[in-house]
Order: sequence, then C-alpha cells, then structure tokens
Amino acid sequence: MSAPNSSNHTPKIDPKALRSALGTFTTGVTIITTQADNGEPVGLTANSFNSVSLEPPLVLWSLAKTALSLPIFNTAEHWNVHVLSMDQQALSNRFAARGEDKFKDLQLDQGITNAPLLSQCSARFQCKTAFIHDGGDHVIFIGEVLDFDQSNLPPLVFQSGQYALTARKPWQDVSLSQADAPLECSYTEDLLGYLLGRAHFQMLKGMQQELAKYDLTSSHFFALSVLAIRDGLTLAQINAHIDYTGQALTQGQLDQLIHANLLAYRESKTTDAEVFLTEQGRQASLGQIAQAKAIEDELIDELGRGDVTALKLLLKRIIHQTDPGLPDLWSTDSN
Amino acid sequence: MSAPNSSNHTPKIDPKALRSALGTFTTGVTIITTQADNGEPVGLTANSFNSVSLEPPLVLWSLAKTALSLPIFNTAEHWNVHVLSMDQQALSNRFAARGEDKFKDLQLDQGITNAPLLSQCSARFQCKTAFIHDGGDHVIFIGEVLDFDQSNLPPLVFQSGQYALTARKPWQDVSLSQADAPLECSYTEDLLGYLLGRAHFQMLKGMQQELAKYDLTSSHFFALSVLAIRDGLTLAQINAHIDYTGQALTQGQLDQLIHANLLAYRESKTTDAEVFLTEQGRQASLGQIAQAKAIEDELIDELGRGDVTALKLLLKRIIHQTDPGLPDLWSTDSN
Repeated sequence: MSAPNSSNHTPKIDPKALRSALGTFTTGVTIITTQADNGEPVGLTANSFNSVSLEPPLVLWSLAKTALSLPIFNTAEHWNVHVLSMDQQALSNRFAARGEDKFKDLQLDQGITNAPLLSQCSARFQCKTAFIHDGGDHVIFIGEVLDFDQSNLPPLVFQSGQYALTARKPWQDVSLSQADAPLECSYTEDLLGYLLGRAHFQMLKGMQQELAKYDLTSSHFFALSVLAIRDGLTLAQINAHIDYTGQALTQGQLDQLIHANLLAYRESKTTDAEVFLTEQGRQASLGQIAQAKAIEDELIDELGRGDVTALKLLLKRIIHQTDPGLPDLWSTDSN
Repeated sequence: MSAPNSSNHTPKIDPKALRSALGTFTTGVTIITTQADNGEPVGLTANSFNSVSLEPPLVLWSLAKTALSLPIFNTAEHWNVHVLSMDQQALSNRFAARGEDKFKDLQLDQGITNAPLLSQCSARFQCKTAFIHDGGDHVIFIGEVLDFDQSNLPPLVFQSGQYALTARKPWQDVSLSQADAPLECSYTEDLLGYLLGRAHFQMLKGMQQELAKYDLTSSHFFALSVLAIRDGLTLAQINAHIDYTGQALTQGQLDQLIHANLLAYRESKTTDAEVFLTEQGRQASLGQIAQAKAIEDELIDELGRGDVTALKLLLKRIIHQTDPGLPDLWSTDSN
C-alpha cells in the first residue's frame, strides 16, 4: 500500500499501475455490435459494461477515443451488448483484435434492430443510444434496453488481465463438520489433501455398484480403465500407468480378470504377453465410464456446469503442478 | 431466448427479468465511502463500479436515486472506492444493509482526503467528484482518481446474486495429454472422476517421504490422521472413519503401529481396547500434516490463494453432494 499523502498534494498517477489496480475489479466480458451506415457489421470486445437503471432500463459501456469504430458508434442509433458465455473465449479474442473479418462464419440471430445479434451468449441487450458522455480518454455510451434475453450458459469472466471462471458460493453452509469450535488439531477439514482424498473416495464409492458386478477392486478398475484407452499392454506396462495410485495389479488379479473373461491374451501366454479387453471387458469398462459420467452429470445438475468446469480447470492446474512425470495415457506416441 | 420482435415495436421491459439478465454480467464488489458535511462517515456496497479512463484517470459508479446517502454523495467533493477482497464478504453485507453503525470497530487508514479509507481490500481508489450524470433511476458518479493502491489479496466476486471466487485460466495450456487428436475412447482426461483421483494420488505421492520414515501405507496414514483428530478409538471405530476410502486398517497393521511405538493401548489389551497416539505417533502425524500443508503452500504459491480457495470451496460442495453420510470426524458430539 502506498504511503499516505497530504491532501494538498496530488501524486502523479502511473497509468500502468492504475490499470493493474483497476484490473482487480472482476468483470464479465461483452461484445458490443452495431451496424455502420454502409451496412457493415461492427463489433468489439469490452469489459466496461455495467447496468445503470431498471426503470427506465439503461446500461452503459465506454469506448476508447482512439478506437476506429468510435465515429460509427457516435452516430449509431442502436447497438447490442452480448454477455459472453464461458465457451466464447475465442470469440472474445477475435473481437478484441483489429481485423476485417470479425463476423466471418458467425451465425447471427434476428434482432429488433439492424445491429448484429450474436448467438450462444449468457445474455443479450438490444439497446438504443440514450446519452453519450465524455469520459477522459474514453466516451461513455448509455443505452436504453429495448429488448433482452438470457440463456442458462455460464458466463466468461475477466480478472487482472486473465480469463476466469467462477466458483460460486452457495447460500447454504459448505463446512463439512458440525463442530462449533474446531478441536485443537492442525488437521482440519480445510486441508486441501483431505478434501481431495474425500472427494475422490466418495466419487469412487459411487462406482461401487458397477465394480461389484464383476467383483472388482479399485486396482482392477484402474487397470481396465487404462486398457480402455490403450489396449494391448503387458502387466508391467499397465502398472507403469497406475503406479501413481500407489496400487499395482498383481499377476493374481490379472489372472482373475482373465478368468472372468474381461481380459484375454491374444496369443498363447508368455511371461510378458500383452493383454486385451474382451468384448465383455469393453462392455464392463463402458458401464464404469457411463457410471462415472452419470455421477458427474448429477453434480453438474446440482452445482451448475460453470462450477464443475471451474473445478476441472483447477484440478488440471494442480495436477500439472504436482505431476511427478507420469506417462501420457492418451498419446499415441508412447506406450 | 425471446422471439424476435419487429423493429417498430418496443416490448415492455420486465424489471425483474432484466435484473436477472443483467446479473449474468459478473462484477467485483466495492464499498464506496465518503464523509458527510457533519463529519459522519458514510458508505455503501456497490457493484456498478467500472473504470472509464486512464489519462486522465477516471472511474464511475452509480447510486440509486432512492438511496438515503444520495444527497451526501451529490455534494461530496471526495469519495473512495474499495475493491473488496475475498475475505470481506461480511463487510460487503454490512455495507449493503441499512444501518447506523457500518463503521463500528473498523480500522481505517489515513487517506489523502477526509473520506474513510478501509483496509484489507484488493485495491482502493481515492477520488474527487469529476462529473455527475443522470441515469434513469440512478445517478452516475464519475470521479478522478487522486491516489490508489493495490494489495495482493484475491478479490471477491458477484454473479447472478451470489458471491463467488474466481478460477483463473492461465495463459499456458492446461490439458494433460499431448495427444493431438483424442483417441477414440469415451474415457477422457476431462472426466471429473479421473481428475479427482489423479490429483488426490499425486498429492499422496508427495507425502511418500514422510510415510516412508515409519514404513507406513496409506491405510496406516489414514488411521493415524483419524487418531490425531479424535484420540482413543477402537480398531472398529477407526475403521468406521476410514471406511469411505475403501481401505481398512487390519489388526495386523494396528499391531505394526503399536510395535513401531506410534500407537499404544492405554490399559492392558482387550479385544476392543482403545488405542492412543504415543508421543512418537503424535510427532509422526504432525510431520505428515506439515508435509501436506507444505504441498498446499507450494500450490498456493503457484496458483494463487484465490484459486486454491476456490478449489477448496468446490471440493466441499461436491463432498456435500456425494456424501454417503460419513460420521463427523471433528464433532465432539459423536464418536
């Protein structure tokens, strides 16, 4: 924090530092569109949007005076604001760059004015210019909302120069324990390692019914999952892929899977022969994947697709950070 | 999405539906403060803040014409904008409600004007009223930034009437596989169950060195962790707490822990006697917790505290959703 200054002294403002501080204020991402006098569609990405008034319905956004499209918006009677959804990051980048072909191949909807109306947004506001105010190096456009609509697509977010998703805080309590005062122990329910373990094991417990159909343990399940992705591996190769779980498929467990007709050697068995999923093994694995997806779909119903996507994003980031160098299960280049 | 309307017809705008659609635009949360003529501090929560201009430095926010503080802000020469940090949700609620004592017990910093300056924010902007514009049922205040500062505290977010945290998208790729085209398999790296398992096991792998000190498996580790929270449990009680992991501590493993002088029976052993952590067992457990926290701290360094907190929030939410009814490990009411 900067040192306090006397009230008579106005310190010089560093625009770069100011931009950084302003960036801490999180925003959504919008694309604003209009039609130029020559009929050309015009659009740009802006995060300076905000609501102003409900009655009358007014919204605002601001545009740099250096923007090429300023003269067009200055005379435009109508413009549309699109609150972008989380899958529209590429569209945001496209409309943030200077380019001739921003609208190329875009499917436009029919609006109530001539301003281009993009699809697949979280919300859209069709506006009529109400006021234009000077705002330093920007111009502030205030528009009256003539029509609007809203989808259930989770929105894209922008914070400190980065795209983001939101993890929403529900109104209900999310603490796991009913304990009024935490016991005197540094092992709390807030420890990330505990939360990851508990979430993982509870998900796995949801798979129990599928696994019980073939009397499978988690080691069996992990091995079948590896073979569902890369078929034809030796026991050692399977175990190289599941080693990070701290579990290994034993020769005895492999024999069980072969005996249960879920796996088979393609040729006569040698010491390090490759095993393949049988048709029944593939069906069992598909059933397990379907069950995992069903649990995930239920969570999407409860938490929302945006929050589950945010969770996956964060999990991938910590997997990257903690990766001990696991073999790439999905790459065709290695075995 | 609503049906297109003819351009000659302006549909009636439903304020409630409009508010909902506007809510899809994510914002930060700010508290705006000023000093009334009588010297009283005044403040309110607003998410209508936005930056306008860098040179000159201008920001804006809008205030409902029905607000009690409107006359005060209308004549105020200075006001401060505080971008709230993620731990300031209670402060946001306090300043969003009508109350006399909003500033009670708050530690104020010394600003360059008389406007109250709150602490522990993500960023603060000390402003001088530049313009005041009419905005329907709101008044738009545009201020020149006289001074500002920024902390590294992650910001609080608001979306669709709910508080939220952000899961930021890094610039680098977060996909786990180098595979150009995904193999033809419905088991992908995007499956939540896979991501949870991999993240959990990689965290556990980071504990390996601590566990190896006493030759412990994950079952031993889970049992020691339970006893670190609730000491004096029988083998059956320990296993009731770790059952959800799909693992159980066997009598043989319990004997190992006693033999290693990590656990002890307090009295002479009976069939279902309670075991306690020895001093050495407590030290071992503290070492494990410290290691788990060190891994977490490293992740906070890499991802940021806001993102790790968002991850924990999301994990708690899915643990709630998938909870098969586990006993409360931290509650003193039950065993």
